[in-house]
Amino acid sequence: MCTAEQYTPLLLAHEAVAIDPSARTVGVKSAAGVELVGYDELVVGTGARPVIPPLLGIDLPGVYAMHTIDEARSLRAVVDGGARSVALIGAGYIGTEMADAFTNCDVEVTLIEMAPAVLTTFDTDLGALVGAELEHHGVAVKCGTTVERLESGVGGGVRVLGGPDLDVNVDAVLIGVGVRPDSTLAAAAGVPVDARSAIVVDERMATGVDGIWAAGDCVQTHHVLYAEPVYLPLGTTAHKQGRVAGINAAGGAARYIGSLGTQAVKILDLVAARTGLRDVEASAAGYEPLSVTVSVDDHKAYYPGATTVHVRITGDRRDGRLLGVQILGTYGAEISKRVDIVATAIHAGSSVAAPSDLDLSYTPPLSSPWDPIQSAAQAWIRAR
Amino acid sequence: MCTAEQYTPLLLAHEAVAIDPSARTVGVKSAAGVELVGYDELVVGTGARPVIPPLLGIDLPGVYAMHTIDEARSLRAVVDGGARSVALIGAGYIGTEMADAFTNCDVEVTLIEMAPAVLTTFDTDLGALVGAELEHHGVAVKCGTTVERLESGVGGGVRVLGGPDLDVNVDAVLIGVGVRPDSTLAAAAGVPVDARSAIVVDERMATGVDGIWAAGDCVQTHHVLYAEPVYLPLGTTAHKQGRVAGINAAGGAARYIGSLGTQAVKILDLVAARTGLRDVEASAAGYEPLSVTVSVDDHKAYYPGATTVHVRITGDRRDGRLLGVQILGTYGAEISKRVDIVATAIHAGSSVAAPSDLDLSYTPPLSSPWDPIQSAAQAWIRAR
Repeated sequence: MCTAEQYTPLLLAHEAVAIDPSARTVGVKSAAGVELVGYDELVVGTGARPVIPPLLGIDLPGVYAMHTIDEARSLRAVVDGGARSVALIGAGYIGTEMADAFTNCDVEVTLIEMAPAVLTTFDTDLGALVGAELEHHGVAVKCGTTVERLESGVGGGVRVLGGPDLDVNVDAVLIGVGVRPDSTLAAAAGVPVDARSAIVVDERMATGVDGIWAAGDCVQTHHVLYAEPVYLPLGTTAHKQGRVAGINAAGGAARYIGSLGTQAVKILDLVAARTGLRDVEASAAGYEPLSVTVSVDDHKAYYPGATTVHVRITGDRRDGRLLGVQILGTYGAEISKRVDIVATAIHAGSSVAAPSDLDLSYTPPLSSPWDPIQSAAQAWIRAR
Repeated sequence: MCTAEQYTPLLLAHEAVAIDPSARTVGVKSAAGVELVGYDELVVGTGARPVIPPLLGIDLPGVYAMHTIDEARSLRAVVDGGARSVALIGAGYIGTEMADAFTNCDVEVTLIEMAPAVLTTFDTDLGALVGAELEHHGVAVKCGTTVERLESGVGGGVRVLGGPDLDVNVDAVLIGVGVRPDSTLAAAAGVPVDARSAIVVDERMATGVDGIWAAGDCVQTHHVLYAEPVYLPLGTTAHKQGRVAGINAAGGAARYIGSLGTQAVKILDLVAARTGLRDVEASAAGYEPLSVTVSVDDHKAYYPGATTVHVRITGDRRDGRLLGVQILGTYGAEISKRVDIVATAIHAGSSVAAPSDLDLSYTPPLSSPWDPIQSAAQAWIRAR
């Protein structure tokens, strides 16, 4: 067991294989064998594992689940080695971002999604606009399509078969159908996990076990607008939870205020961003949502370069509480920062109406005297 | 006097010359003479007038104060007519924006400002960065410089003389040294105005006179962070106040929640934006401000195109209250929308620390897991 003198700040190429909460030790495996490392406080950040669908042929060479940097490098080597085509299974953030990246590398992309539109964390009609953008850039978008099996393809590639009418031969297949919490280590030590295998934590990121904290893609997450914890593996959430866990493990007092599921993605010439709840999510959570969409200029049309931005704002029709927004527009960080204005308002317990009164910035090249989110708020008030 | 049948919704080329609050009439002058128009409720939106410094030669041909659309057209005609050089007196929003516009028209610009840096509503060091950007694009920036007189120049232009060492000969001169409320009409009718001649209004935009409301550049403005009303002639403020005045005049109930002085300006390849108070303003208002600046990447550096964004956040060191932010960075609306996130937080009564906890959006092309404003908030906490 390490003494204080032997303390090593960073153990790379070491795998934690067991936690003993009563002895306050972690069993650590390396090339040198297994040793015990003592701790006063332990922060578990074991992250997530990609979901690998149990398809026939999933273990074929040329099939990737890009989770580690090494896997990304392997895939990069495949492209640099002359790959001309790729199939992406799943059109969430990873699938659509990889479609963007491969398209920019002049690799032919077939993007396969079971749902009726890409980007299923957005409403279907907005996802369809993103799908049209992908097609406009040459991506073969196959929604409502299920992969049934993979086979060795002609010329060393992979043949992807499914329904309806899916039969493509590609140089590589990339799976991006989501992740699951990697909580095995903690669970084996008696740390409680929920039905999704996410580690149960309180607002201090404390687990049920004394001296053990957890954060990031391996834990359940408090969501401001849901009564029950959710599983939302996102980098922003992991950063905030890790900070809270670290402060508390070091003897401080920090609290994770909760997520709104705020997300942004750049896909070719578009940005889609969201925060809070959509209609379908809000209804399931017991709200009575009303969503209203405006499609307006991102800045004054008399200044060159104005483009249309679609803003869908969601609130509870009973009490007018602001619940969420989805924004889709031309590539630029202001799309996502407009979402963040709404996120800030939701955190403050805002009504849908209130953002209309906020003193937001304006100059013709950058916005309108009423920002698009204020136009959306006003449209919601009229529609209610 | 107009009867209901004669009611005309829009009287163009008509000048309101007198208000009789007891008779509830407005005297309106047109080519047809003066007639009386009756009203139930009256909204005054007479705007502002440009400040014209009492300089010798100010009435020379070739000297402009761009206030009306006709004046803008005249100036455009001067450029289209072959003007190669212009002097701008005053380097506030109008001066710097016009420097941008003339530079884009390949007109040589001399920008003259009394203060030590351009853009005096920002801290001097940030203004100096904007000045350097203007100089980088060929603008002759003359700060700490006072215009003393104008003379007829050689070749039909204007000679601008002042100190120290100001002597330029240009095709046109544009004055942009601010505006004053145009409250003459209302004041003559007994509507109270303040020491700056701004019409006194309450949060309903009601004046002291029954049936008369006022809004926009002619009124004083409630500022969320100041005890006393301010004069802040801005388009955003005018839109909000006009809406409030209109709703109330029509029998509704609306309240103007107040300004934060949120402003944004695009100058060549930069955007500068601010909300709330700077140190110098906060101190004068009785706060004990602390400002902290971070200069960070606008998005993850491994994604192409990252640029530096300067974020200066201001809070009260006694109670940690968030007071304001100034952001300067590369042209893009996200600079100003980041300011708006802070504006939204100030409206909600946020501490400086709180934005660090907000669930703001992230994806590598658009931001960092901690948005630059969150990095600034964290730096402020460490520096306090």
